[in-house]
Amino acid sequence: MEFCSACGGRIARRIPQGDSRPRHVCTACGTIHYRNPNMVVGAVCVWEDRVLLARRSIAPREGFWTVPAGFLELEESTADGALREVFEEAGARCTVDRLLAVYDIPEIHQVQIFYLATMTRPEISAGIESVEVGLFTWDEIPWGELAFPTVKAVLKDWQRLRDGEAVSRRDFIRPKPPVTLPDDQ
Amino acid sequence: MEFCSACGGRIARRIPQGDSRPRHVCTACGTIHYRNPNMVVGAVCVWEDRVLLARRSIAPREGFWTVPAGFLELEESTADGALREVFEEAGARCTVDRLLAVYDIPEIHQVQIFYLATMTRPEISAGIESVEVGLFTWDEIPWGELAFPTVKAVLKDWQRLRDGEAVSRRDFIRPKPPVTLPDDQ
Ligand SMILES: [Zn+2]
Ligand SMILES: [Zn+2]
Repeated sequence: MEFCSACGGRIARRIPQGDSRPRHVCTACGTIHYRNPNMVVGAVCVWEDRVLLARRSIAPREGFWTVPAGFLELEESTADGALREVFEEAGARCTVDRLLAVYDIPEIHQVQIFYLATMTRPEISAGIESVEVGLFTWDEIPWGELAFPTVKAVLKDWQRLRDGEAVSRRDFIRPKPPVTLPDDQ
Repeated sequence: MEFCSACGGRIARRIPQGDSRPRHVCTACGTIHYRNPNMVVGAVCVWEDRVLLARRSIAPREGFWTVPAGFLELEESTADGALREVFEEAGARCTVDRLLAVYDIPEIHQVQIFYLATMTRPEISAGIESVEVGLFTWDEIPWGELAFPTVKAVLKDWQRLRDGEAVSRRDFIRPKPPVTLPDDQ
């Protein structure tokens, strides 16, 4: 962020009075531009004993398989957003059964919320962000070609939690490389 | 949003190619500025049979009581953010027990996530955003002076779910006023 979205002035990083961390502050109008992690919503959509997956036509991880998911829009609920992504990416219609998982990925400034959903009809079709879509039994899931760690996690959580009521919460935090202390010799 | 935060150019609202809704697009450098709802994190913090509340020193709802909660920072997990808010607003130290509730409030572009937490010591102290803080039994909770509908909801969910495993998910959507059709006479 280099310029103020309110007035076009130059942005500086400074700690506002009463705050404890540096913010993007406009040097012209004084507006403080707070930043907040991005929310991704998605769904594990089930038809009988099969789960809906889409093979990505776009970066990142083009050609790999995912459950339908994407960024939440400004004026929709997380459940509505998940159902919108399901329809946009895989042409499927679902109803939401329950909240399935909340994943934190602070390293990429994301919180991901996944719902368990039941398809209301078996028709599916690849949207613009998908090369192909498919319904997979557990043994047919292309485990070696999944797009992201969260896709594998949410499929496992779906199996683990299918009869229970718990919601999975996981932190996806890549281990930091060991700190190399400066050699003082 | 009037100006591009990347280059300072003028922003126009238009539907980018391959998209289906209007976005803030820079007329100078072409950057599409997506917007995403804000994430609020908080905690129901318990010491023995009492729950921690803070009376707000700031707008909105100055003087009313709330559970500690606030905007998630960019590089923290939702649970870490909740514990940070607890310490900042009420000087309390807690450990997170479980995810308690996910509330959607699309009207104000918020998703709120609440944790159930146990205080590790009874000391509390009002932070800069609080007039006072207190530990309340269920019957002592100032129900008529709670700051927001979500505060009442999460306290009720805490009682309802205390022995169970379910996570509450609620939509806070104000009913739209009835549409008045133009009179064609
Ligand atoms: Zn400005
Ligand atoms: Zn620009």
